Amino acid sequence: MVWADTDAAQVVHYSNYFRFFERAEEEFYKQLGFNFTDTAKNGIWFPRVEAFCQYKKPARFDDLLEVELTIEELKEKSLKLGFKMLNKETRMLLALGYVVIVAADKLRGKATRIPDDIVRKLAGFAKQVIR
Amino acid sequence: MVWADTDAAQVVHYSNYFRFFERAEEEFYKQLGFNFTDTAKNGIWFPRVEAFCQYKKPARFDDLLEVELTIEELKEKSLKLGFKMLNKETRMLLALGYVVIVAADKLRGKATRIPDDIVRKLAGFAKQVIR
Amino acid sequence: MVWADTDAAQVVHYSNYFRFFERAEEEFYKQLGFNFTDTAKNGIWFPRVEAFCQYKKPARFDDLLEVELTIEELKEKSLKLGFKMLNKETRMLLALGYVVIVAADKLRGKATRIPDDIVRKLAGFAKQVIR
Amino acid sequence: MVWADTDAAQVVHYSNYFRFFERAEEEFYKQLGFNFTDTAKNGIWFPRVEAFCQYKKPARFDDLLEVELTIEELKEKSLKLGFKMLNKETRMLLALGYVVIVAADKLRGKATRIPDDIVRKLAGFAKQVIR
Repeated sequence: MVWADTDAAQVVHYSNYFRFFERAEEEFYKQLGFNFTDTAKNGIWFPRVEAFCQYKKPARFDDLLEVELTIEELKEKSLKLGFKMLNKETRMLLALGYVVIVAADKLRGKATRIPDDIVRKLAGFAKQVIR
Repeated sequence: MVWADTDAAQVVHYSNYFRFFERAEEEFYKQLGFNFTDTAKNGIWFPRVEAFCQYKKPARFDDLLEVELTIEELKEKSLKLGFKMLNKETRMLLALGYVVIVAADKLRGKATRIPDDIVRKLAGFAKQVIR
Repeated sequence: MVWADTDAAQVVHYSNYFRFFERAEEEFYKQLGFNFTDTAKNGIWFPRVEAFCQYKKPARFDDLLEVELTIEELKEKSLKLGFKMLNKETRMLLALGYVVIVAADKLRGKATRIPDDIVRKLAGFAKQVIR
Repeated sequence: MVWADTDAAQVVHYSNYFRFFERAEEEFYKQLGFNFTDTAKNGIWFPRVEAFCQYKKPARFDDLLEVELTIEELKEKSLKLGFKMLNKETRMLLALGYVVIVAADKLRGKATRIPDDIVRKLAGFAKQVIR
């Protein structure tokens, strides 16, 4: 939680939760050994098509936060990631959210199959695989 | 759309849509003559309890954007604002979203009635008034 | 000034001034009829090599701000833009700053001459032309 | 380096360097055991009065970054922090910068002495103590 993430209500600005979710997502991919630079070179991107967050308790400047990430659904061309944000010390639930991501063929501008090597790495963590 | 709002996919980063929605919201309040500095002095804040966005088409650096704001629901202690983001020139729909806002008594840390003068100003624009 | 730009000191976060400067810069280019998408297609980008800001007075949520932009220096491969941020109503000076921008050939990764058509448009506004 | 920090030039947006500097600063204070919430309760804030950054090499999405922080000057009412940003793997210098911070009495709206307990903790790290 840095000062720049707070707003004049002295809590973390609500749009920044999506950035924390993203940080958790990137950390997760890094641990799986994904290389998005390579994927992007092959013309496949992963835009978000939906984003949602429910705010339970405000997060403050001093708070240490923890984000729990789950793969709620893994489909042929999309996946849904779930997020829980907790206060790391009190274990209080601060926020719940999700994002839906599609694999997109950038040149043709349309949805495409998630590459097999990525599917293989994600499948073990998915609550639901629908293909 | 400023350069700082874009990301390495050369489109506007998805978390920034919530900031554009917020800008539209503030503009709307300003036109209604709200004074949040006064409201805040009386200890009433308007935190978001939910935020959602569905992304239809990417927005790019050069695009001129327009945000349409609607009051979807006006309740005793909360309101739901709807947003549509359009490309100002092509009229293409880029994104749809909403935020749910509660009136909060900051000292007691709980939801409170939206002040009457604010309700009066908003009611004329609300699709649904549930009180 | 949107809520998202403020921080927990209830003033605009200092890093956001650079975003306001950037917004003024883009507005200026737009009025001159620049098309950066075209320039980028030709492999020329305009990264910043220096950025500076001096903060005189805090800017608050309700404030209407105005940014004055000047071209301090126009050189063969770089330009220096100066910025003043004022409170639009009180005319109080809030901040002073500058950025130094180079024309960069993205493929070769080095500085290059600013394209002639851009130089022609900027030269009339420059306090100093050093070539 | 998260995706949200990049811009359409596929490098980290220049204004975000100040946020990384800030993160390093907060980490440093945390290790020294500062409690800004307490300081703020006593009406003392630490606004920035100057910020500067020189950009040497672009930082990209995949890069691991490291920020080195130094206390360049410690004065009665202000301090100057220096920053170096390096690529953690290649040790390449990416950016150099500084911020000047004053201790401010929020109620009276003017500079004040940095509290003694903070001075004591910082003095050992300062290149120059001018009092």
